[in-house]
Amino acid sequence: MSQGALDRLSLNQITTEQWNLKEAIEGCIRHEVPWISVWRHKIEEFGLAESARMIKDSGLKVSSLCRGGMFPAATASERQGRLEDNFRAVEEAAELGTDTLVLVCGPAPDRDIDQARKWVEEGIEKLVPFAEQHGVKLGIEPLHPMYAGDRSVVNTLGQANQMAEKYNPSQVGVVVDVFHVWWDPDLYNQITRATGKILGFHVSDWILPVPDIFKGRGMMGDGVIEINRIRQAVERAGYLGPIEVEIINQSIWDRPGDDVLTEVKQKFAEHV
Amino acid sequence: MSQGALDRLSLNQITTEQWNLKEAIEGCIRHEVPWISVWRHKIEEFGLAESARMIKDSGLKVSSLCRGGMFPAATASERQGRLEDNFRAVEEAAELGTDTLVLVCGPAPDRDIDQARKWVEEGIEKLVPFAEQHGVKLGIEPLHPMYAGDRSVVNTLGQANQMAEKYNPSQVGVVVDVFHVWWDPDLYNQITRATGKILGFHVSDWILPVPDIFKGRGMMGDGVIEINRIRQAVERAGYLGPIEVEIINQSIWDRPGDDVLTEVKQKFAEHV
Repeated sequence: MSQGALDRLSLNQITTEQWNLKEAIEGCIRHEVPWISVWRHKIEEFGLAESARMIKDSGLKVSSLCRGGMFPAATASERQGRLEDNFRAVEEAAELGTDTLVLVCGPAPDRDIDQARKWVEEGIEKLVPFAEQHGVKLGIEPLHPMYAGDRSVVNTLGQANQMAEKYNPSQVGVVVDVFHVWWDPDLYNQITRATGKILGFHVSDWILPVPDIFKGRGMMGDGVIEINRIRQAVERAGYLGPIEVEIINQSIWDRPGDDVLTEVKQKFAEHV
Repeated sequence: MSQGALDRLSLNQITTEQWNLKEAIEGCIRHEVPWISVWRHKIEEFGLAESARMIKDSGLKVSSLCRGGMFPAATASERQGRLEDNFRAVEEAAELGTDTLVLVCGPAPDRDIDQARKWVEEGIEKLVPFAEQHGVKLGIEPLHPMYAGDRSVVNTLGQANQMAEKYNPSQVGVVVDVFHVWWDPDLYNQITRATGKILGFHVSDWILPVPDIFKGRGMMGDGVIEINRIRQAVERAGYLGPIEVEIINQSIWDRPGDDVLTEVKQKFAEHV
């Protein structure tokens, strides 16, 4: 991607986990990053109203709120609790000025992965009217199959597409994260199938050896993912919105945030 | 699976990495495990002829040789070298008295995963006539997508089925390992599609948290995989052969092998 395209760059806040929301906002301003994706645990420190005010005052645009989801649970009352937490997430997204809530759909509470997948569909079904009232779209993000046991039972773009297709694109779509989908032999077919329904595009890289199951992502260009090829496919499928850099990696969190943003911009220009 | 079904139990030798081949054979005899799956690095210590003699004298049956594959490489001469190594693996399988060579197909030498997948298909195409002459079938084992970067670009049973369908089941089939495929939303369809083509069935479990990317497997019953459900599907697809227990886990390697085999038999009877 050319240097000029940095106007699509969004800092997903988990990339600079070492920064709180205020520091991340200031960092984006200093480095002329126009977009930010906010994580809910980062809002807690300042409260929702103050977080929303800081963002508004900064002029930053919010590409998404991360995250809703986590629908499956062992009992009906627990599932209701999860749903209510999703209502809060929708309200937070609206208040922060983004139209996209990313869904990390959650693992099974037991071994029954089929049932958990049904609970995900039920949860989304119940969440859609509330989200629509608030002008918030739900972006189903398939997670890499290595997270099927503890983070999400939605593990392929095909699955996410199937779930999203029950709704209008203004209600539910999919989020494509290269780290989660790069290995999929059906990836480019499924990106085409998602035309008009892609609500977000996330980049990082798959580095070898993978340093950690959760904190295992690398900077764009440092790994084996054909990031640029996937970006082009996503663009052909109609997605021209912000591109979030979402890198979960302890060694990146251990560096000064400004160094990280400098490298993010450089690697984004070269490899995305 | 009932206790009586232990006649299908096979010790995949990597489960007792702490044992050499002689110790593993003696362990199987002591614990009345009728099958063994041999790894090539374990043959080296004794040499092929002595290894084959030890197995023959023991009366153990060999469920498979692990492994051929690793087809993709950057240059034609390197790929030829990989192919020749596969010829040796076929000869070893035949000498050891097994009709099944498990293929771990290999990663891409660069970022081009599509090209690597083509090289896998080319490698198999060139290997089939040689294997057939030696009475050895090639079992394509899809590996979990978390190994797409460093072990295999064949990551779903659907992919393995598609590759295997070009051949007779006497030439090429698939190997179903629950650890690699349990998360797949299309799993049961693909097992049905593999009817008559399943050459092996491997069990372990997906434990949480995953202790390590490579050495991350648990004992059957200790994790989240619906092992028994998958076994039943594999049986409906016509596979009634040996079931290999293949657990790659440092903490299991740190225990006395006899303790491991005792637990393997118990967990196999309870959870497979």
